[in-house]
Amino acid sequence: MLSPNPLYPGARVALLCASSAIPEGRLEPAVAAIRALGLEPVVFPSCTALHGYFAGDDILRAGDLNRAFTDPSIAGILCARGGYGAHRLLPLLNLPEIAAHPKFFSGYSDVTALHTVFNQDCGFVTYHTVMPATEYYEPVDDYTMSYLRRALFGALTGPLKNPAGQPLQTLVGGRVTAHLCGGNLSLLAASLGTPWEIDTCGKLLFLEDIGEDTYRIDGMLTQLRNAGKFRDCAGVLLGAWTDCPPENPDRALLLPDIFAELIVPAGKPTLAGLACGHTLPTLSLPLGGVVSMDADAQTLEVLT
Amino acid sequence: MLSPNPLYPGARVALLCASSAIPEGRLEPAVAAIRALGLEPVVFPSCTALHGYFAGDDILRAGDLNRAFTDPSIAGILCARGGYGAHRLLPLLNLPEIAAHPKFFSGYSDVTALHTVFNQDCGFVTYHTVMPATEYYEPVDDYTMSYLRRALFGALTGPLKNPAGQPLQTLVGGRVTAHLCGGNLSLLAASLGTPWEIDTCGKLLFLEDIGEDTYRIDGMLTQLRNAGKFRDCAGVLLGAWTDCPPENPDRALLLPDIFAELIVPAGKPTLAGLACGHTLPTLSLPLGGVVSMDADAQTLEVLT
Repeated sequence: MLSPNPLYPGARVALLCASSAIPEGRLEPAVAAIRALGLEPVVFPSCTALHGYFAGDDILRAGDLNRAFTDPSIAGILCARGGYGAHRLLPLLNLPEIAAHPKFFSGYSDVTALHTVFNQDCGFVTYHTVMPATEYYEPVDDYTMSYLRRALFGALTGPLKNPAGQPLQTLVGGRVTAHLCGGNLSLLAASLGTPWEIDTCGKLLFLEDIGEDTYRIDGMLTQLRNAGKFRDCAGVLLGAWTDCPPENPDRALLLPDIFAELIVPAGKPTLAGLACGHTLPTLSLPLGGVVSMDADAQTLEVLT
Repeated sequence: MLSPNPLYPGARVALLCASSAIPEGRLEPAVAAIRALGLEPVVFPSCTALHGYFAGDDILRAGDLNRAFTDPSIAGILCARGGYGAHRLLPLLNLPEIAAHPKFFSGYSDVTALHTVFNQDCGFVTYHTVMPATEYYEPVDDYTMSYLRRALFGALTGPLKNPAGQPLQTLVGGRVTAHLCGGNLSLLAASLGTPWEIDTCGKLLFLEDIGEDTYRIDGMLTQLRNAGKFRDCAGVLLGAWTDCPPENPDRALLLPDIFAELIVPAGKPTLAGLACGHTLPTLSLPLGGVVSMDADAQTLEVLT
């Protein structure tokens, strides 16, 4: 697994949307925020296009991605936001060309579909970070911005620590050192059965989601369980489950019950409560990087 | 593909829940409605058990299914309702024993997970019909009940016709005669990547759903498209899409656009608008049976 070159002051970065369109009024502050990080944003057409709920049609959005990778003047790619639609682009990506031009790539949520493919099919590390049109077009806490800067500028090795006062929970003890994979549960479930299916074999699997009833979380974890993804992985790391309440609390399994029924039986080292996902403050993660997790000591460290 | 023996007056039928629990007050009228059809209901434990949103835990619900198939005094099985949870049971089903005891099996919605497995892995036809604790515990229109009786008593061959005034729509013309597969889109998407994945090769694929935002329908159809399920099938038959509105109508693709982008490009004969799914009146379908569809003439006929 290749670690792409980190960004640097003045680096030209593509700003694009693989999924939904940037809400009105957010593009300019997002551009300003990227400049404030010392980078030079290049606004791609998907930042201003519209097709239904998409930031332009599939051909336009996939074209932006293909061009951003092959353009030698672009040092890295920032997905402006998530939303919905990245997995529609997978048949349209020029993966051999992307693999030949690995570069810094970042985002999360719907962007998970792209992380998986760039890690698995193109062989380079990508970054699960906050996005300019979702979070940092407006002021964001120092913890989050510090992790973003570490991701952008090649300093994400070392311990990953939750903010003070946010303890991790051990669901299954044990230690694992493995390549990190995963991201948004909805997108990982949506990858199954396709040529771009998440491969968890021997890897540490990170999961998070937002805005799903608990029975939907149950359903997607059941699909992953049925597909052998917990059996095959080396460990599980659970992040934020934002706005995932039960439809009817009197007749529901709650998330800890669901994890106990669907993830714990696989017996892999499992930590819950990582401050990562659709939450602030949030840390950043190197997908495809090597991470060491001690689920007894409740520690995490990025090795490469 | 084996057609199980049809039911007959006085046949003992298992009433059970593979998914969610029967709502309070519906079991007795459901039992009475089955008796009114001339059948003798045998109430299995899952009709009165509760575990979170499930009708008892996975072991109890799977046990009911395994016993209902192997008990020689039971002539057929009626799923009392859908809801959520059938695909959790798949690893717990005794498929060799079920294959050795094919019998009438009916339901729809969440029950799709079981239809797929009984058709593909156990080799017998099952019935996509209304359910006693969902619809016919209270009076239901004659059209729906007529199709239910045809399914129950072995008379579902011949034309499938929408109620008067509900025209079909041709999305792609052409004719196909093939085994019918499919059901609820959410459950079909959730089968992908698992040992119980829907196989659409050379088959006519029926799809319907309820209560999903259009972007979720888009997402699930994209997963099926990415998995090659439209490329591999022989034709597509679209049923009811009940309460599937766009979250934001001003910035959404609508269902016809989504079908045009994701299903039509496969070029397989495709009809939309079948009165089947979470809707009344609804017709019944033999999953695994052979159906002839003329998408130009907009006709459907069950051959076996």
